[in-house]
Amino acid sequence: MNAADLLERRRRAMSPAYRLFYEEPLHVVRGEGAYLYDARGKEYLDCYNNVASVGHCHPRVVAAMAEQSALLNTHTRYLSEPVVRYAERLAETLPGELGVCMFTCSGSEANDLAFRIAKAVSGGEGVVAVDFAYHGTTNTVFGFSPEECPAEELPDSLQTVAAPCDYRGAGESAADEVAGACAALNRKGHRSALFICDTAFSTNGVLTPPPAYFRTAYRGIRAAGGLAVADEVQAGLCRMGEHTWAFEAAGIVPDIVTMGKPLGNGYPLAAVVTTPEIAKEFAQKHSYFNTFAGSPVAASVGLAVLDVIEEEGILQNVRDTGRYLESGLKELEKRFERIGDLRGKGLFRGIELVRDRASREADPESARKIRERLRADGVLLGVTGPRENVIKIRPPLVFSRDDADRLIETLERALQWLQ
Amino acid sequence: MNAADLLERRRRAMSPAYRLFYEEPLHVVRGEGAYLYDARGKEYLDCYNNVASVGHCHPRVVAAMAEQSALLNTHTRYLSEPVVRYAERLAETLPGELGVCMFTCSGSEANDLAFRIAKAVSGGEGVVAVDFAYHGTTNTVFGFSPEECPAEELPDSLQTVAAPCDYRGAGESAADEVAGACAALNRKGHRSALFICDTAFSTNGVLTPPPAYFRTAYRGIRAAGGLAVADEVQAGLCRMGEHTWAFEAAGIVPDIVTMGKPLGNGYPLAAVVTTPEIAKEFAQKHSYFNTFAGSPVAASVGLAVLDVIEEEGILQNVRDTGRYLESGLKELEKRFERIGDLRGKGLFRGIELVRDRASREADPESARKIRERLRADGVLLGVTGPRENVIKIRPPLVFSRDDADRLIETLERALQWLQ
Repeated sequence: MNAADLLERRRRAMSPAYRLFYEEPLHVVRGEGAYLYDARGKEYLDCYNNVASVGHCHPRVVAAMAEQSALLNTHTRYLSEPVVRYAERLAETLPGELGVCMFTCSGSEANDLAFRIAKAVSGGEGVVAVDFAYHGTTNTVFGFSPEECPAEELPDSLQTVAAPCDYRGAGESAADEVAGACAALNRKGHRSALFICDTAFSTNGVLTPPPAYFRTAYRGIRAAGGLAVADEVQAGLCRMGEHTWAFEAAGIVPDIVTMGKPLGNGYPLAAVVTTPEIAKEFAQKHSYFNTFAGSPVAASVGLAVLDVIEEEGILQNVRDTGRYLESGLKELEKRFERIGDLRGKGLFRGIELVRDRASREADPESARKIRERLRADGVLLGVTGPRENVIKIRPPLVFSRDDADRLIETLERALQWLQ
Repeated sequence: MNAADLLERRRRAMSPAYRLFYEEPLHVVRGEGAYLYDARGKEYLDCYNNVASVGHCHPRVVAAMAEQSALLNTHTRYLSEPVVRYAERLAETLPGELGVCMFTCSGSEANDLAFRIAKAVSGGEGVVAVDFAYHGTTNTVFGFSPEECPAEELPDSLQTVAAPCDYRGAGESAADEVAGACAALNRKGHRSALFICDTAFSTNGVLTPPPAYFRTAYRGIRAAGGLAVADEVQAGLCRMGEHTWAFEAAGIVPDIVTMGKPLGNGYPLAAVVTTPEIAKEFAQKHSYFNTFAGSPVAASVGLAVLDVIEEEGILQNVRDTGRYLESGLKELEKRFERIGDLRGKGLFRGIELVRDRASREADPESARKIRERLRADGVLLGVTGPRENVIKIRPPLVFSRDDADRLIETLERALQWLQ
């Protein structure tokens, strides 16, 4: 199948609202570990795809899916052992009172359900979210996803706060804005339901807020009667290399944690975990059912991913390889003026490109060129941030030191070529 | 694993908002075709589960899932052949201009996306939905799901219309209410975005509206500038035995069709299909991406389900077995006064139970007793309807004449036992 023909067929049968990556779209046909292969057999080191968390097509996960699918696949209205076991295992990874699970099919559904829970518990509908955040595609969460939702469509019940970006100046004070946002919602007649925050600030260009950020922000929303929601769809499940969940590094415990992308290694599996008290309050108002979510197959896949994480020492690998990658990136930073800032932890890294280190003027053109050049050189990565000038590195968690070397070498060639 | 222990573990690790079927919950461990098996090895004829559309654990679907999962599982931002092929195949099943696909992970997400599209195209947010309808679990669609959403939480932008129920008197005139509902929305300051309707009226107790219903209702919403959305999550993919999609029997073409439950035989696969014009209008305002939806695995599973439907003559089986089942139900109706009305088509049937045929007083107690008694006798079915007095029969589409005989015999015993 010729890529141009396939593209034309896609244009007819699929919505034009879909976007393809790259100037010349990538036609992938096979994946394995941290590698993808296109229709011509060309190999790509995958430094982009976080969904294939334990590696593309991990045989253990595939086997768990196939075995359970051949045995039984029903829903949460019957008793079924795998889903109970998965809920227990997932709860064990979380601190404090976070021990009650609800399953969804996507991170969008998880954030949407978190909103419903916060609304039921707080009695409000006001949302405090971070500028340029993205939380998903349902009508409600799209409305608190300013990265994608046009400004004129953002609802009156949304109040945004600055991202805690040290590089561009709002790091320390950003957390204080949450309490102010709640007050602003109040003045507009909205009671605050939740403060929701992607713990990795992915769309903001991958940020690590100052240590007190979450404590102050969570105090702000709770004082206003709302819930603190950690969106760990991107940041969670060992991605940051320190803990299973990114918020743990800040020493805080959210009221609700939402999770998605890495949980099923590609199988549509996502979850909301909260405290018994909050779960009970929600259940007094609403029952919950999601046809496909919490099925024995979804649960078996989720269990297999947790098994792989333990048995293959994934968290340790992320920590080690993350540090190794960081030292390589720091070497590049010393040599290339175009690198304005290096951010992130573990295997989630942002490289902010600037035209000039003094002025910090964003350089989206170089970011785009690097993404395209690396694709030609067999390495996949992304570009993010409100200025589209942050190279986003977010590979499968089985990424090795050799993979890091290959990424650094390829990046180095691209940065040289740009000069 | 003891069912009581499992239940206790479930109560700790999963939200109390989850509900279990049956007074003594069913602990299932295996499924095959139209049969489920519990932990003690007891066999149940499954007359309830529409998700396992081509039969529990269909080997062809399981193989397609396992093969593609071992080969590649990515997303719609790369070119991938299976998803294009699936979009084409799905579009081929639909009439008229309905040829542009968008994929989601659940029927809830599909209806939520239909709302977003209708909002973008109409410029309104007003929803016309049927009394006691159910369209899903996201915050937005829950708000037009009066079966589940408490009345005091239904938004001002929702206007409900009566279900077209001949048995209880609102059949012929119900369609006219759509135009009136649009006018009512208008008076409240809401422009109409969509009329959404489950083509099988599942939660209303399984209704077949009079032939002109959809024509009149669709004319009403379109005259008000809104879109006509057919929710085929329950009714679609051969369930009604006449056509692939239930709305085809009415000789109308909706603006948007949403589909979900049966598409992936248990894999989280759902879709929105619309016209090129509507798809284009939406794309001019928003881009669309859904991480897990439209993956090569989801598409391969969807293709395998369509293959099975063709090769095993599923539509013909639904038609034949549906008629055979209907004649058996009609025999029961002659003998048991408790049956007030028989409704539905194909393999989606409702039996409305009444205390008295003259008064038509609903008999939810008998419906509940029959559901429990049939479970004891190895047959699974449900109860639905605003009065909780309609036995719901909705088996996998591989249901055979022998299965129909077994269901009728078991129902007969239960009806006798009730007398």
